[in-house]
Amino acid sequence: MNRWSFACTACGLSYPASRRFPRCDSCGEPLQVVYRGQGRIRDGNILDQKILERYGDFFPFPVPDRNLSLGEGFTPLVRAGKVLNRLGLDRLYFKNETMNPTWSFKDRGTVAGIQYAVDTGCDVIGTVSSGNMAVSVAAYGARAGLKTIVLVSAAIAPEKVAPVAIHGPVLIKVECDYGELYFESLRIGKERGIHFINSDAPFRVEGSKTIAFEICEQLRLNSPDWVVVPTSAGGNLRGIMKGFEEFYDAGLVSGKPRFVAVQAAGCAPICRAFQEGAERIEAVDHPDTLAHAIANPYPPSGNEILRRIRATGGTVIAVTDDDMIAAQGELAGEGIFAQPEGAASLAAVKTLVREGRIRREETVVSVVTGGGLKYGAAFQHHRFDVLECALPALEGCLSSIL
Amino acid sequence: MNRWSFACTACGLSYPASRRFPRCDSCGEPLQVVYRGQGRIRDGNILDQKILERYGDFFPFPVPDRNLSLGEGFTPLVRAGKVLNRLGLDRLYFKNETMNPTWSFKDRGTVAGIQYAVDTGCDVIGTVSSGNMAVSVAAYGARAGLKTIVLVSAAIAPEKVAPVAIHGPVLIKVECDYGELYFESLRIGKERGIHFINSDAPFRVEGSKTIAFEICEQLRLNSPDWVVVPTSAGGNLRGIMKGFEEFYDAGLVSGKPRFVAVQAAGCAPICRAFQEGAERIEAVDHPDTLAHAIANPYPPSGNEILRRIRATGGTVIAVTDDDMIAAQGELAGEGIFAQPEGAASLAAVKTLVREGRIRREETVVSVVTGGGLKYGAAFQHHRFDVLECALPALEGCLSSIL
Repeated sequence: MNRWSFACTACGLSYPASRRFPRCDSCGEPLQVVYRGQGRIRDGNILDQKILERYGDFFPFPVPDRNLSLGEGFTPLVRAGKVLNRLGLDRLYFKNETMNPTWSFKDRGTVAGIQYAVDTGCDVIGTVSSGNMAVSVAAYGARAGLKTIVLVSAAIAPEKVAPVAIHGPVLIKVECDYGELYFESLRIGKERGIHFINSDAPFRVEGSKTIAFEICEQLRLNSPDWVVVPTSAGGNLRGIMKGFEEFYDAGLVSGKPRFVAVQAAGCAPICRAFQEGAERIEAVDHPDTLAHAIANPYPPSGNEILRRIRATGGTVIAVTDDDMIAAQGELAGEGIFAQPEGAASLAAVKTLVREGRIRREETVVSVVTGGGLKYGAAFQHHRFDVLECALPALEGCLSSIL
Repeated sequence: MNRWSFACTACGLSYPASRRFPRCDSCGEPLQVVYRGQGRIRDGNILDQKILERYGDFFPFPVPDRNLSLGEGFTPLVRAGKVLNRLGLDRLYFKNETMNPTWSFKDRGTVAGIQYAVDTGCDVIGTVSSGNMAVSVAAYGARAGLKTIVLVSAAIAPEKVAPVAIHGPVLIKVECDYGELYFESLRIGKERGIHFINSDAPFRVEGSKTIAFEICEQLRLNSPDWVVVPTSAGGNLRGIMKGFEEFYDAGLVSGKPRFVAVQAAGCAPICRAFQEGAERIEAVDHPDTLAHAIANPYPPSGNEILRRIRATGGTVIAVTDDDMIAAQGELAGEGIFAQPEGAASLAAVKTLVREGRIRREETVVSVVTGGGLKYGAAFQHHRFDVLECALPALEGCLSSIL
């Protein structure tokens, strides 16, 4: 790999690229990748290009292996339609991450994490997740032909097991606290040579940068004013922030957005600390939300999100389950079917516009993180009208509603 | 719209572009669009381009409306990995249509059909479907702000209703034979000014051409030897065939592939007619397959598929439900989670290689039509291993399997 290093996100302490443990020895906070390439976009026909190729200048991979890719990224930035008027906004875009290979944003970080594993000679990978990340790592691990370990909570809903298991990983239900499992997996990984691509693993964060890169390209090398991101562990938002910084530093865009971290009201440790002016998050004891994908009770990148949001003039807000369900319906009315967590960003935009925090003339990007078919249980919260008729009555039925 | 016309796929009879009924008055067979543009690919950054723009020379739309698009198409062509050796093939690719906005190929034809409706001043659209097409038309109809009518069979499974209804169409369960409903919807559509974008509507077929265009681009302007397509009504395969013809006629590629239409053994009217040497398909009385998405008992483009497959040296084969489930597992082992119908094409490739019809050195493209989360009931046909352990036992458990 090209010359690069790790640095602590909090105290700045530097670590060599050979380090196997992704947290700081001094302060315990997450490490991030420090690398400075040429800073160009490598032009090409995206039909035959990969994200790690197009944005290769921003990654320390000399030659990314195309065979690890499933064609992740390059997702559409869809301009909002009829919801604009209701909101009172001029320009709102949905970054539709539901169109990734496993139908969530996780695939970007997974491919970067696996590229790193392969480049450093590691042939066993793993993750701690019961949702989108488990599916993504299982799929890409199968693709790469690597032994793949997925650790899920013993409380996992049965319908969430099959979409992971179909890819054939070593799937282990672990009886434990989810937060403890995260740190224990990192410890075992270091001891046993398993590369755990967890929610805020440094190269997973690197992969998420490409969301920012694409948004800039899709706005013709402009930065939006606001980027709104459903936030759980914090890794995805960290990556998106880092991506905008790197395009700015490379002179590719002339401005930087502010960021909104969106949490579920029933599990909002970052939001609570933000509002209380605290420097560190505290674990939520009893998460109570249908939005499991953003219900990490003790986000491992939570403190770093606090620091970065404060340093860049952004905000953290919590939205209720009802808000998310309503936003899920409105987003479906725009043609995009997201999981409730994916619609949390639209729910947040609505609140922030109403409160005057986001102004009409500002350009807003709402990141839609995962697809609606991942969580069928949400349907029960919607009310649907279905008409019925026999074939001979159809023409009459149709003319009555035209 | 630019100058164009319709022609009957069977007898060649010509009809003006103003015609509202998509079948031939003389022989009853489906009409297709006749249009000859410049025949160039319009280069551009796909991050900010639509399929109807890039391939605009092959469509009679003067200025496609970007706001109708959800970013359909431009799906990856993924090179097969470890399955290649097992198969005994050198080059097999998966065209992954599960990465469309509503996670199936249908979105390409839907956007073209709606563009046509808008260009001809029609503000009510509809479809007859209980699966992928219903979801797609509901989503794009919502996007376009058009009144959208979705006619489903009264026998629709409850879990298939919600993914359509979430987009807010007029959803009507009709008590009837599915084949009759298809023709009745066209009749009512002509009378009442509703544009029914059914399975082989002429502009739906046009939209499917873009699958062929992209495959050619992704193979660096080469044609593969074989293209293998799960086939129900026949519209998608017709569009893919037409696309390869048009790129060939425009001089963009120097060869043409042969085609394999893949049906489910429990509902294979086109396959049966092909094997019996019949000129016309006959309706299947009692479809018996889990592959509902390719179980049209009387495919409206069935006769045309027979003619085209025979004229171009292709074949039609049927695969069993067990074959599809096995192929679904193998495809998941490559990282792609398809619905069983989407894996039917891989099942067919396996059979054709085994029988020596497809040779090792030939280049094969298998079209993966829809995503696996659309049909959760398929999971029950797979067997999954799940381990369990407590946190203190995890390290021991992991070292035993490394």
